[in-house]
Amino acid sequence: MNEPLYAGIELGGTKTICLIGSGVDSIRDQLQIPTTNPADTLGQLHTFLASQGELAGIGIGAFGPVNIDPASANYGCIESTPKPGWSHTSVVPFFRERFSCPINLDTDVNAAAIAEHQHGNGKGLRNFIYITVGTGIGGGALIEGAPVRGNSHPEMGHIALPRHMADETFLSACPYHQNCAEGLASGSALRKRWGMPLNEFPPEHPAWDMQASYLAEFFHSLTLLFSPQRIIVGGGVSSEQLLARVRTALYKKLNGYVDALKLEASLESYLCLPELAGNAGPLGSLMLAYPEYRRH
Amino acid sequence: MNEPLYAGIELGGTKTICLIGSGVDSIRDQLQIPTTNPADTLGQLHTFLASQGELAGIGIGAFGPVNIDPASANYGCIESTPKPGWSHTSVVPFFRERFSCPINLDTDVNAAAIAEHQHGNGKGLRNFIYITVGTGIGGGALIEGAPVRGNSHPEMGHIALPRHMADETFLSACPYHQNCAEGLASGSALRKRWGMPLNEFPPEHPAWDMQASYLAEFFHSLTLLFSPQRIIVGGGVSSEQLLARVRTALYKKLNGYVDALKLEASLESYLCLPELAGNAGPLGSLMLAYPEYRRH
Repeated sequence: MNEPLYAGIELGGTKTICLIGSGVDSIRDQLQIPTTNPADTLGQLHTFLASQGELAGIGIGAFGPVNIDPASANYGCIESTPKPGWSHTSVVPFFRERFSCPINLDTDVNAAAIAEHQHGNGKGLRNFIYITVGTGIGGGALIEGAPVRGNSHPEMGHIALPRHMADETFLSACPYHQNCAEGLASGSALRKRWGMPLNEFPPEHPAWDMQASYLAEFFHSLTLLFSPQRIIVGGGVSSEQLLARVRTALYKKLNGYVDALKLEASLESYLCLPELAGNAGPLGSLMLAYPEYRRH
Repeated sequence: MNEPLYAGIELGGTKTICLIGSGVDSIRDQLQIPTTNPADTLGQLHTFLASQGELAGIGIGAFGPVNIDPASANYGCIESTPKPGWSHTSVVPFFRERFSCPINLDTDVNAAAIAEHQHGNGKGLRNFIYITVGTGIGGGALIEGAPVRGNSHPEMGHIALPRHMADETFLSACPYHQNCAEGLASGSALRKRWGMPLNEFPPEHPAWDMQASYLAEFFHSLTLLFSPQRIIVGGGVSSEQLLARVRTALYKKLNGYVDALKLEASLESYLCLPELAGNAGPLGSLMLAYPEYRRH
């Protein structure tokens, strides 16, 4: 008997990746396309999936806000989003009409957190947070093995941060919030403020310290609110070079408070890159297709 | 056979309450004393408990930061705290030396959250947050029935908030952070800024709107990070009069984002007082003594 074949779709704000395999160690095909408009992106995914033979399940890790409540009539539909054309797009219903296998959807960051928990830097942890700093900023908290969900999923990138003193007049890159993490420290914000990506600046340029300061403020709040064992930082803006500066700024902001964390001894492991790098989201999306991660 | 008799101690930053009973509906004795210095406060608790006959368990809900890890050699010890005389006080060891029954300790806000979950406004919820706004600010998140714990317990009151534009020169009431929620919006901060408690001001005084604005910013972050089904706000500064203003300010800050929350329809139940009022902490501390809440 053949092993069951799963599809994992990471529907990201910039690009979409689809993996086909029986597990994370046996990927047999993949597709990577830019996330353009819904008809084009979903259409290409349909063509690719239809060519794969019988699927035992489809897992989808989607950008948000997206309805993740399996009991809702709008389950698997994108909500109001600044991404042109995608507000109220029906993602799960699109695939349900075309495939008879079970379909399970969560956020892209929850999917990445699940992959890091099983196969990466979240192994053995009871409480950690996965953050992506890319075109946007998002995050998922994995507590006692399950992503935190409530009314919906977290939208971590939109919490307000105090302005950096050299950044008082910058117009936020977020259309909803003048002072949120995504508006001030995402890849979009960096490009809007400086005209080019962070990694093109020399190490002494002030862009580095401002970015480190904003992320340290963000991770300071996460540390105090969740008391996580680790914060894993993925996404195109994240790098060891940046995280080294963020650790220094975070240690300074903690200012000796919460000494139980003994963070001074372990900041390098406390704040780290995803072990699976850019594969965390796609592999986690594939895992969402496994029977044990289905929620309905 | 007699029912087992439990003791619940809420060791608060300002006052300490001890309840004796077989359950939250059968309290047979209680003590309320100011929290002064450790020798005096713990001594009075010892005298009171020793007069009660055989105890089946002692539950303690303590102010933080406190070591809540049962596997640690410092379990039940207060950590570095601005509260004079209490840094490194051994609370659980003090009672262990004097009583042979099981002793279980958590934070005062986790205790209050447990009580509200079973007997108050948290009933039936999978994900809610209990916040106290009193002398200090603290919070606990109850996710899938258990308080969120990681490296230690959350210290929610110390996340940074953007300054209110009419409050740029105020010196924070927190010795650790110039811009944290506790430093800007606790009872201590209100007294330091205005010279008297909030409820003594007429409704048109700007203190009300500033306080509502700070708490709305705080709850905005909690909403985006945890996606809770409810935020319950206790403590001496909290009141329906204040929460009504906070709801208006929170709705404005959300700015149409996260529409799945449909908060406009349900803000009154989303942001509410504890049903158990000031009893949430003491009753939750008693519940910590029950066998089912013990963690060791």
